[in-house]
Amino acid sequence: MPRKVDHRARRELLADALLRLAATRGLEEVSLRHVAAEAGVSTGMVQHYFRTKDEMMTFALDMVMDRIRARSQAAMTSTVPRELVRSLLLQVLPLDETRRQENHVVLAYFAYAAVRPAIASGLREAAAQTRRFLADQLRAAGAFDLDPERAAAGLLALVDGLGLQLLSRQLAEEEAVAALDAQLELLFGRS
Amino acid sequence: MPRKVDHRARRELLADALLRLAATRGLEEVSLRHVAAEAGVSTGMVQHYFRTKDEMMTFALDMVMDRIRARSQAAMTSTVPRELVRSLLLQVLPLDETRRQENHVVLAYFAYAAVRPAIASGLREAAAQTRRFLADQLRAAGAFDLDPERAAAGLLALVDGLGLQLLSRQLAEEEAVAALDAQLELLFGRS
Repeated sequence: MPRKVDHRARRELLADALLRLAATRGLEEVSLRHVAAEAGVSTGMVQHYFRTKDEMMTFALDMVMDRIRARSQAAMTSTVPRELVRSLLLQVLPLDETRRQENHVVLAYFAYAAVRPAIASGLREAAAQTRRFLADQLRAAGAFDLDPERAAAGLLALVDGLGLQLLSRQLAEEEAVAALDAQLELLFGRS
Repeated sequence: MPRKVDHRARRELLADALLRLAATRGLEEVSLRHVAAEAGVSTGMVQHYFRTKDEMMTFALDMVMDRIRARSQAAMTSTVPRELVRSLLLQVLPLDETRRQENHVVLAYFAYAAVRPAIASGLREAAAQTRRFLADQLRAAGAFDLDPERAAAGLLALVDGLGLQLLSRQLAEEEAVAALDAQLELLFGRS
């Protein structure tokens, strides 16, 4: 029987090497050669799985999004809208080493999408989906004096901004969590 | 009389070339050579003013911050705290080509500071200063049931997040302005 190579697992192994490098060197400096060295494989092997750095970045972003989604699903055990929203958003913020690495990839991808309009559509769809979820939770909580769409857009922007500020060390972790909680109080405290 | 070279003006001319490139190519791909070509000078001339790309990026960031500050001062003609805050924050958001270029530089610098802790201190001080201003305006408006520091941190994060989402085309301009106005209503509508 021929040996079956698990493509997906190999690609994840390489994308994980990319994530580790992202947090120490910054993604703009990382090449396929660096990833090969970090993963302990040849550059040719990396090129077999990813023809370009762009392809690898897109794969790494999808992987990160899947992981955030899976963690969020596991964390969202409450049925109270405010608690649901809080546990989701805390999974996104870079509050531990794993999430810091993930946020580096997301931030690099945002910067990358900013100059390549064609690849921005996937990001736009993911953000719209999150905003719809947040707006639904605001409606479910009965915060009727708010425009739920605008409040959801503001909340997601606030979390993206906190992530950016945490990564670039403009804010301490406890300040970020306190700012998020103050916003949740503003939005859900009215329900 | 010896010819007096205006160092500052030359550096600004080169930094402006960097800003134009930032919006089309992304800063991670821009080299001193690209900047020389864009500015129509020799690479040697660029190297005379900036020894490294890092030095040029730091200068460009300072220049952008100065310009935002000057524009904000000019725009802040109101004495009503809510209007003051709104006109400041609208100067920061990438709502025209100039501010889009500026935001590319700021975003690239954030990503850069994320992996170089030593250079993050300037950013941290600038952010803290903006947060203090916002907190003072909230206090002046008499929004006494809010913690002004946390509300200010949330508001600045929201604007940073909207900027990031606008640049990466996740959000339309009118949606971003509507989300900002909804937040100002939440914060100042209580006063």
